[in-house]
Amino acid sequence: MAPTPSTPWLRVDLPRLRRNVRRVAEHAATAGVALRPHVKTHKSVEIARLQLASGAVGITVATIGEAETFVRNGVTDVFIAYPLWLDDASATRLRDLAIDARVAFGVDSVEGVANAARLLGATTAEVLVEVDSGHHRSGVAPDEAGTVAATATRTGLGVRGVFTFPGHSYAPDALAGAAADEADALARAAAALRAVGLEPEVLSGGSTPSLAHADTGVLSELRPGVYVFGDAQQWELGSCPPEDIALTCRSTVVSHAHGRVVLDAGSKVLGADRAPYATGFGRLLDHPDARIVLLSEHHAVVDLGGAPLPPLGSQVDVVPNHVCAAVNLVDTVYAEESGELRAWRVAARGLNA
Amino acid sequence: MAPTPSTPWLRVDLPRLRRNVRRVAEHAATAGVALRPHVKTHKSVEIARLQLASGAVGITVATIGEAETFVRNGVTDVFIAYPLWLDDASATRLRDLAIDARVAFGVDSVEGVANAARLLGATTAEVLVEVDSGHHRSGVAPDEAGTVAATATRTGLGVRGVFTFPGHSYAPDALAGAAADEADALARAAAALRAVGLEPEVLSGGSTPSLAHADTGVLSELRPGVYVFGDAQQWELGSCPPEDIALTCRSTVVSHAHGRVVLDAGSKVLGADRAPYATGFGRLLDHPDARIVLLSEHHAVVDLGGAPLPPLGSQVDVVPNHVCAAVNLVDTVYAEESGELRAWRVAARGLNA
Repeated sequence: MAPTPSTPWLRVDLPRLRRNVRRVAEHAATAGVALRPHVKTHKSVEIARLQLASGAVGITVATIGEAETFVRNGVTDVFIAYPLWLDDASATRLRDLAIDARVAFGVDSVEGVANAARLLGATTAEVLVEVDSGHHRSGVAPDEAGTVAATATRTGLGVRGVFTFPGHSYAPDALAGAAADEADALARAAAALRAVGLEPEVLSGGSTPSLAHADTGVLSELRPGVYVFGDAQQWELGSCPPEDIALTCRSTVVSHAHGRVVLDAGSKVLGADRAPYATGFGRLLDHPDARIVLLSEHHAVVDLGGAPLPPLGSQVDVVPNHVCAAVNLVDTVYAEESGELRAWRVAARGLNA
Repeated sequence: MAPTPSTPWLRVDLPRLRRNVRRVAEHAATAGVALRPHVKTHKSVEIARLQLASGAVGITVATIGEAETFVRNGVTDVFIAYPLWLDDASATRLRDLAIDARVAFGVDSVEGVANAARLLGATTAEVLVEVDSGHHRSGVAPDEAGTVAATATRTGLGVRGVFTFPGHSYAPDALAGAAADEADALARAAAALRAVGLEPEVLSGGSTPSLAHADTGVLSELRPGVYVFGDAQQWELGSCPPEDIALTCRSTVVSHAHGRVVLDAGSKVLGADRAPYATGFGRLLDHPDARIVLLSEHHAVVDLGGAPLPPLGSQVDVVPNHVCAAVNLVDTVYAEESGELRAWRVAARGLNA
């Protein structure tokens, strides 16, 4: 049992976390699709184990460094959902990784896949072609997926399928529409693969906001990440009610300057994410009307909407806007259950490469 | 000499860093005021040593954890510029720290100073009263500084002086005005101390944007932080020309999706700060017209303003919006000089308490 840290610290509500993990696992099982959660949200071996024990087929990561961390800790099936541009060093790491685990990674260009094939040489690592379903970040147009996949096959890389991230689900009232776009893009990409003689084994999609709307008649795999914790973004998008939020930043009221509450939780523990639809820089779990109206590195100034100020020295639970950013700022999160705290290392923190 | 890391990684231009450190040290020396740089920007022992060797009287930090890191590495004079609300554990740490170094910390309420005095007992740690000069974050009104200072004296804590952070300098055309507010607030706070029979030894102010305008006829001490590196915020505020920017994120072009450049430097290495006046989520050092228009955890989508796209696999230097946030995301920065890289640990990374 870990001692209670001085504020600010990130607290995981372990019963809520277990419930979130189980609920999404059951959703995937009922729909008959694979669940491959994105562990970039928690970067913690303990939580990945909970997900795998609940039926996840493997994990999703964003970087080779994240993949290495989880494989070193016993995970045997990893998809790097990112259009990697390999260099000599990263190709060596990826090749080694594919000896220890079942590994796949993303590609979104003929050049990228050719570069990877050249640097990797003989490998069991497979690729999934990333397609753009409307978020307009990386990913080829669905109809071009066949060209990229054919290049992979020709240069010696196995093609597992296609994937997309419907990130445009991160907007009010966009959840169902993004899920429809996702299914459409994946279906078209699969057709493009078949047109070049390749049968996709996996059609992978999924973001937390669009999860409930994912078309599991088309998708064969879901990759949500944030659902384990929830955050203020999901709260405001309507994809996570506050009673499901499983991670908060325990913080202390350090000042009542100007008749407002100032907390010791700043952007260096909450992150500075503020989406266009966000109503502030973060919220308080037990004060639904409160908003963080000014955020600096070690100060959160809270407008409580006229409610009485929590006293100086008292502690409150802040809900970060974007939980992935908050977790990536700390080396340890503290999971609480039955009044006991356990220190969980954020094992893949900061592994951007 | 460190090997070149895989992207994304934070690169310090060491000649530029040395020049920035020297320029501000000379500015303070010429004005006859003390320089006590805020090391929250770099959190690195190596850079603190450069600052102290150039004449800084000591360092400024935001947390006890930062203070401990630097004192453990030989720094002997630390000001924690934050209205600490102590608990038993943090009071013990602060008391121990004050045995090993000259220590001061901030207070901004009668309750906060009384709580600190009660928990600290006999200590050589002194306080500075924080006053609000217009940023409206923490800090008492200048005229109330005497009441807080008198409480400190009565409860057994030594009062060193008053301080403010003119954070409202972070807006276009606000630099000189914020500096004038800063001087006015500190002068009034000093008068409030004298009215209760206390002579302030230190009147401390300073932010990087307002630095050139600081009224050194009033201020006795400057606490800028960002000046060592500069960043896109300072570039856009006019307080750091691009040729002085000493920290960038070396990143790789991983995709040309939609005819735009996608880089592997996302919010998990750049930070997600975007001030209201910012023109994007970050800039490219060698492409002044380029803007990061979409930023996610491992992707920066760049609009190059019509310029030809850097080729896939090529590397570019990103200027983060807020350099303090970027540095706090990595465990190591790499300082380059004469073609050689040195790995510098971000020793106080993540120490929020």
